[in-house]
Amino acid sequence: MAYDKLDQLAINTIRLLAVDATFKANSGHPGAPMGMAPVAHVLFNKFMKFNPKNPKWLNRDRFVLSNGHGCMLQYALLHLFGYKVSMDDLKSFRQIDSILPGHPESHDTEGIEVTTGPLGQGFANAVGLAVAQAHTAAVYNKPGYNLCDNHTYFFFGDGCAMEGIASEAASAAGHLQLGNLIGIYDDNHISIDGDTACAFTEDVTKRFEAYGWHTVWVKNGDTDLEGIEAAIKECQAVKDKPSMIRLTTTIGFGSLLQGTHGVHGNALKADDIKQLKEKFGFNPEKTFEVPQEVYDVYHKHAAEGAAAEQEWNKLFEKYVSEHKVLGAQFKRVLEGKLPENWQSKLPVYKPTDGAQASRKLSEAVLQAIHEELPELMSGSADLTGSNNTIWKNAVDFQPPSTGLGDWSGRYMRYGVREHAMAGMMNGMAAYGTVIPAGGTFLNFVSYAAGSVRLSSLAHHRVLYIATHDSIGLGEDGPTHQPIETLAHFRALPNMMVWRPADGNETSAAYYMALTSKGTPSILALTRQNLPQLEASTLENGIKGGYVALEDKSAQITLVATGSEVSLCLEAVKTLKDQNIKARVVSMPCVEVFDAQPKEYKLSVIPDGIPALSVEVMSTLGWEKYSHEQFGLNRFGASGPYKDVYKKFEFTPEGIAKRAVATIEFYKDVKPLRSPLNRAFEQLI
Amino acid sequence: MAYDKLDQLAINTIRLLAVDATFKANSGHPGAPMGMAPVAHVLFNKFMKFNPKNPKWLNRDRFVLSNGHGCMLQYALLHLFGYKVSMDDLKSFRQIDSILPGHPESHDTEGIEVTTGPLGQGFANAVGLAVAQAHTAAVYNKPGYNLCDNHTYFFFGDGCAMEGIASEAASAAGHLQLGNLIGIYDDNHISIDGDTACAFTEDVTKRFEAYGWHTVWVKNGDTDLEGIEAAIKECQAVKDKPSMIRLTTTIGFGSLLQGTHGVHGNALKADDIKQLKEKFGFNPEKTFEVPQEVYDVYHKHAAEGAAAEQEWNKLFEKYVSEHKVLGAQFKRVLEGKLPENWQSKLPVYKPTDGAQASRKLSEAVLQAIHEELPELMSGSADLTGSNNTIWKNAVDFQPPSTGLGDWSGRYMRYGVREHAMAGMMNGMAAYGTVIPAGGTFLNFVSYAAGSVRLSSLAHHRVLYIATHDSIGLGEDGPTHQPIETLAHFRALPNMMVWRPADGNETSAAYYMALTSKGTPSILALTRQNLPQLEASTLENGIKGGYVALEDKSAQITLVATGSEVSLCLEAVKTLKDQNIKARVVSMPCVEVFDAQPKEYKLSVIPDGIPALSVEVMSTLGWEKYSHEQFGLNRFGASGPYKDVYKKFEFTPEGIAKRAVATIEFYKDVKPLRSPLNRAFEQLI
Repeated sequence: MAYDKLDQLAINTIRLLAVDATFKANSGHPGAPMGMAPVAHVLFNKFMKFNPKNPKWLNRDRFVLSNGHGCMLQYALLHLFGYKVSMDDLKSFRQIDSILPGHPESHDTEGIEVTTGPLGQGFANAVGLAVAQAHTAAVYNKPGYNLCDNHTYFFFGDGCAMEGIASEAASAAGHLQLGNLIGIYDDNHISIDGDTACAFTEDVTKRFEAYGWHTVWVKNGDTDLEGIEAAIKECQAVKDKPSMIRLTTTIGFGSLLQGTHGVHGNALKADDIKQLKEKFGFNPEKTFEVPQEVYDVYHKHAAEGAAAEQEWNKLFEKYVSEHKVLGAQFKRVLEGKLPENWQSKLPVYKPTDGAQASRKLSEAVLQAIHEELPELMSGSADLTGSNNTIWKNAVDFQPPSTGLGDWSGRYMRYGVREHAMAGMMNGMAAYGTVIPAGGTFLNFVSYAAGSVRLSSLAHHRVLYIATHDSIGLGEDGPTHQPIETLAHFRALPNMMVWRPADGNETSAAYYMALTSKGTPSILALTRQNLPQLEASTLENGIKGGYVALEDKSAQITLVATGSEVSLCLEAVKTLKDQNIKARVVSMPCVEVFDAQPKEYKLSVIPDGIPALSVEVMSTLGWEKYSHEQFGLNRFGASGPYKDVYKKFEFTPEGIAKRAVATIEFYKDVKPLRSPLNRAFEQLI
Repeated sequence: MAYDKLDQLAINTIRLLAVDATFKANSGHPGAPMGMAPVAHVLFNKFMKFNPKNPKWLNRDRFVLSNGHGCMLQYALLHLFGYKVSMDDLKSFRQIDSILPGHPESHDTEGIEVTTGPLGQGFANAVGLAVAQAHTAAVYNKPGYNLCDNHTYFFFGDGCAMEGIASEAASAAGHLQLGNLIGIYDDNHISIDGDTACAFTEDVTKRFEAYGWHTVWVKNGDTDLEGIEAAIKECQAVKDKPSMIRLTTTIGFGSLLQGTHGVHGNALKADDIKQLKEKFGFNPEKTFEVPQEVYDVYHKHAAEGAAAEQEWNKLFEKYVSEHKVLGAQFKRVLEGKLPENWQSKLPVYKPTDGAQASRKLSEAVLQAIHEELPELMSGSADLTGSNNTIWKNAVDFQPPSTGLGDWSGRYMRYGVREHAMAGMMNGMAAYGTVIPAGGTFLNFVSYAAGSVRLSSLAHHRVLYIATHDSIGLGEDGPTHQPIETLAHFRALPNMMVWRPADGNETSAAYYMALTSKGTPSILALTRQNLPQLEASTLENGIKGGYVALEDKSAQITLVATGSEVSLCLEAVKTLKDQNIKARVVSMPCVEVFDAQPKEYKLSVIPDGIPALSVEVMSTLGWEKYSHEQFGLNRFGASGPYKDVYKKFEFTPEGIAKRAVATIEFYKDVKPLRSPLNRAFEQLI
């Protein structure tokens, strides 16, 4: 179609809103919005379907701004199309308690699909959104009911293109033949250090071809709106490959500093803004100016989206009445509810049941619940047999042409791509119909730290199945034995770190992970066998911490997690031989324990006797729950795991020795308060 | 050259040593060594120069096994060539206190250049080793004195090829035109999940070409020794590009399970070993068998290496006498010594000096010391202007053909590749002539967590210049504001986490970071200005913690770091208005403070009065140094930094309020011990 002055006016309106908002905030990134306004206009106004009045409509096209620093572009679009972003909101960009933070956050702003800014994350999120779409379509679409056919579009810049997570995600997307995914690469040759010639001279197009992507090059992304439209159309027609449009643009288009990194991360100067507005035919005396005809054209497109949703709603109701079982399931999933009584499927163990590694106990949970929870998609970063993340007869999520599975499959082969796995899972969770769970060794969850942080910040229900959780993995040695990992993720807000001690606690961990809609979980699981405990129940486990062995006349409380709980129970016997009485607390999840009523917590770790924590990794943070800490503030060792435990004195005797020292040390302190008693409350 | 039976015998000896060692350990990875023994034989015996009697000889060729799980390949080679790896050592593979852990660790085993196993790390290390070589050659080689011309060779598998860090490092190496770098890709189509067809179907060769690498394909890596030799020769001849040899091999070559993932991570079965030894003409009744002629041929090559080193030593002495200044410098650097009195160049500040951001104070240090320390190479992951990592007139380390710098340049443009930057810095530090320092935002050091961990484990002197260290970065908001990051890295063994409060503390941080040969450092630096403190001196700073404001009649100790120290000093005044006396401790580095004598530590955080820690991020771990903790156990907010501080009550009033609560809470506890008094010592 032909483009006219109105299109140019809309584009310049977007550019100037970004310029004015960053100028007012005296902070932010005008360059990318100014360069990408043309493609954003074409994409949003000519291609994307969405309803600003219901930003959560399932079949909307998804948009991800992986170069999230350019968020004023997206905020301007949300405002112009009529999402809940007012002119006052635009004026409060980057101010305290504004709904428009310095980088896009899905939890803050309606219409933002995923939280981006940390470079490369949005790229992986987009791949995850496309995975979830392909899967949802395969499961629910029926002849005459094309309920799920949206595209995922994403923008990314040179920064994202350099990040490893984007490379991993691009390789995965190519393998998965995600034809519903279209990425637009802002090829503007500028990053913060200046011209990309100083560090980034690879052939990006060729690299994406090597991954199996379809590629197109639009050489003049500043003004060739027809070319942009043709490129997007061409990519939409490619059904068996993701597509990448290399869009050569001028960063800060129109500014006196256009094409330099001077417009990347700083507001424009006043005189530059003046000449820009004049050049664009805007009144240089006015700020935040939106011509009514721009609102009109965008509101018209929004109204078309609203109408499309209405049509879709009718089709959906018809579907529900025709495909009763699947329809009810689809409806339930869309409402974000788990099936009634699903938790009755969680395995329950008696103390007499055999010892098992908690990675195997986790497998048993997945085996038991996967039919009940069709929204659950499991997977692993190439450690399936070690992470035990697969259930019997699971079908791979694979392009049918591979002969290895199909789009309805629920098992993801992420490859050795931990960071992309986590970023993709964030996107999958954001789509709205999938609960993703993905496995790797606990030590290598750290490879994914950038995305794990965003699971927490963006409130995604994502499960990290993190096996081989300590020196207990044995022979692989210090390169694979986590020391700092649990401290790291316990310090991360809005993250549940679970380290279950046995079967019932493993079921409890899954129960909480699956029912906590806005909080991700890391399940730290052993390689080695653990006995089933006497006091462990689902009810106890979901409190995060509970008394595993009570003794009202105890002289000390031993607080432990995972594999060390049964060791502490052994240590109680050793102490008894020395006429010392001890009680044991199992603390599978400190974050969940923190949320219990204080009275309960003080019944678990009471005043009057000292508490000693026992966990075979960094002691950092255990001071919050214990007076003294037995842990491992050094790297581990390679050897059979029992030898490694012995080397570091993680034996009943080693624990008992420290318990005795702790009792002795605190005998004269009055009052001896539980460490849970604090002088003031923390801000949360 | 022609290959004969002796070559085949050597290759099969390597294979069987790997088979016997993993069988004896009942653990480990025989498949990769069996598949890669041919290329290892050709590479080590026909190409590489090294002296097993002096594994640290500068001009040795470097070898990195990025697929470190195949370490029995490398251990067998070290043994056969006469390094300090005995037959008994091979038999103790993966046992407690063996020098041969489950993955190669440079700190444990002579001849291992870098610690690998976590996939992709060795790849980035190899790029760093090649950078350091190119730089060292450019600085020190003179006509007639080709003192530094070694190659870096590395092996990597499908797992490494999938990892983002390897993609980043490969892109960087291509840009840098590292002709001294040759990677051999073990294209065996097998990863832990089985055939790579399930997740990894990209065109790896094309991808490396896109990065600017020279590529060769050896289609029969199992037996085509001539082809392997020709490929390596071809790559050696390419001087302006790194090279990648795609070597198609059969994992577990010779085993009944060859070509399957069954030989990847498990010892072979006894009957399989029997048939294998028979097939290879070995006695199936014997284990760990090495034919004398294999020792002979390898020892001959080792002797040639020793002779080459002798020649080199003579040349080096001549060089030192001819190029006096440069020779003395080269000698000093090779001995691992810093120049006499270099620390006199460190900036010193008076309390009356102006307030500055600690990222600017860090820049002042680099400006002041860079001439004194020619071994220092700085750089940034595309945040040069924000990290302030560059000194005036610094020359980029760049291929001269770019026109942007040259090989002798000392400033690295890492691109937006945090993980590869860290992995490359580990390799650069391992080379022996370079001290690398690299910048990014503190929040994005987490992207590099996999490599940062190995900086610590492998004892590399690497400096992470981590700016924008808290909510004090302001407008960029929660996606960029670290909360969990310092807790994460404080929990990591052998890592110094510095958060200086002013100029003298910043100098102290650099002093310790540069003089601690076996410990990496993270320098957490502010975006916002900080005043120069009264009590801050280099001498105080290098203790890790000291009294910033003493008051013998104080009722409370405020313990703070970085930007919160001056806030606490303000809070003392607020408390004084309420007739409360407080003292302040500045704690720029808890790890260094931990190493001080107990008497000193107790003079800093004494018995008898409570201590309150103040740091604008996770409180996790501060219980070790304080009775109560004021921090931020939630995500931050986007806004001007002073508003953000106020929102979370990080003001003199907010601190004073909590100090009052703390004093009140502890007034009845007797004895009130310093938190530094513990019941028992931690294992270290």
